[in-house]
Amino acid sequence: MTNQESQCFSIPVRVYIEDTDAGGIVFYANYLKFMERARTEYIRSLGIELRAGMKQNISYVVHSLEIKYQKPAKLDDLVTVTANISKLGKTYMVFEQRVIDENGGVLVVAEVKVVCVALESGKPRVMDSRLINALS
Amino acid sequence: MTNQESQCFSIPVRVYIEDTDAGGIVFYANYLKFMERARTEYIRSLGIELRAGMKQNISYVVHSLEIKYQKPAKLDDLVTVTANISKLGKTYMVFEQRVIDENGGVLVVAEVKVVCVALESGKPRVMDSRLINALS
Amino acid sequence: MTNQESQCFSIPVRVYIEDTDAGGIVFYANYLKFMERARTEYIRSLGIELRAGMKQNISYVVHSLEIKYQKPAKLDDLVTVTANISKLGKTYMVFEQRVIDENGGVLVVAEVKVVCVALESGKPRVMDSRLINALS
Amino acid sequence: MTNQESQCFSIPVRVYIEDTDAGGIVFYANYLKFMERARTEYIRSLGIELRAGMKQNISYVVHSLEIKYQKPAKLDDLVTVTANISKLGKTYMVFEQRVIDENGGVLVVAEVKVVCVALESGKPRVMDSRLINALS
Repeated sequence: MTNQESQCFSIPVRVYIEDTDAGGIVFYANYLKFMERARTEYIRSLGIELRAGMKQNISYVVHSLEIKYQKPAKLDDLVTVTANISKLGKTYMVFEQRVIDENGGVLVVAEVKVVCVALESGKPRVMDSRLINALS
Repeated sequence: MTNQESQCFSIPVRVYIEDTDAGGIVFYANYLKFMERARTEYIRSLGIELRAGMKQNISYVVHSLEIKYQKPAKLDDLVTVTANISKLGKTYMVFEQRVIDENGGVLVVAEVKVVCVALESGKPRVMDSRLINALS
Repeated sequence: MTNQESQCFSIPVRVYIEDTDAGGIVFYANYLKFMERARTEYIRSLGIELRAGMKQNISYVVHSLEIKYQKPAKLDDLVTVTANISKLGKTYMVFEQRVIDENGGVLVVAEVKVVCVALESGKPRVMDSRLINALS
Repeated sequence: MTNQESQCFSIPVRVYIEDTDAGGIVFYANYLKFMERARTEYIRSLGIELRAGMKQNISYVVHSLEIKYQKPAKLDDLVTVTANISKLGKTYMVFEQRVIDENGGVLVVAEVKVVCVALESGKPRVMDSRLINALS
């Protein structure tokens, strides 16, 4: 029997003072940093490095996203940030992502569409075939 | 005859090096900072200060948002960031927001739902009646 | 008679929620953003744009700095951030910078050495002669 | 014989796109985030949590710092950030901190003075005796 959870890529993220705001919680834009870290580590775990891509005029940019903030993370929290591919095209990836607290409670849910572009022109281009194969 | 554009609240935002990333464009999370500045200035223009709210145990938190990144802003750009109420409840506001370049081109479009909560409990509460009246 | 104050370049900076932390004050790294904005606007006021420099393989990087945090800025504060040249070389500028509150109180004082480098190699290079002349 | 290096507290920090700027390197203010993470983890390793302190009206604020940027960190780099106490008072700690690359090269060196204050008044106060004992 397949354990759905174990198929899910995730990283731990500690909440530092830099992430919080005067409301005492993580500033809403900063969850996007956490999610970008999880996507990057997922891609890195497949053997692809962002910087190497840039040298080849490849960049991955966020095309659009939807995010729901259900409960706030706070200073010193150790949260889990997931990154899974829900849809894959030749030039784009759609990620389902969650921020989960230490008790398994879902704090934030997002769907993020990332498009592969030529760094100089910003035009969409086909992704590295190694990446497509690894994600398929 | 009413000019729709003139009813639109907006602020100018200069893109600084702090806003950019190694791709040479504004980092995707940082547009949320620009949009939060525009919402705050809109509320301030109605005579409501965030800090004063916090002293009264009131906070405004983002509940959810959708955002589309159409074209990137770059270093030194002077963009316009708009904030308009598209829907108003007793405990929440929905903002339509845009980032617009110097030629009127739309770079980013977002819909942001902001909920008024009690700072300590995080539970929704009715907004300041001055704010509701000013926005109605 | 020369008024020392009037020779001082400064910009106003509003403190937004993005700038604050869970301690209720501006996060200590974020004053460096404010100061970089002031330096950039000072240079821009002399007719030099950072992005144009990058296209010519010129970048300005911070070499070293000293900073004293005397009093904190808080949410909604409107502070003044100054930028003055205290020393000028062919490849570097030393800035004296302050963050000042609405009553003239000094919140933060810094001395920041900025070096002109070739963007690709990171090696120091002589600054744009227009910039040297304007600052001399 | 004591190994000086082994007495040094450090954490690994991966450089993400959020940390970089349009110059292709880590934005100068962001090293202060890395250093604050290392200080926090050092304190946490001694059994002290920041959030717990805030509930007791205790906060640790940076009083002053000096920093030298010797070589830049870049996207995808995995750097080591150290935190050592060089001087300890009843109300303050002085940290010596470095950012070191994967070959042992020193990228950034800083001296950071952190003062323990009462969260509400901002006035210096004696640090938690457990912390003073652990650091002595």
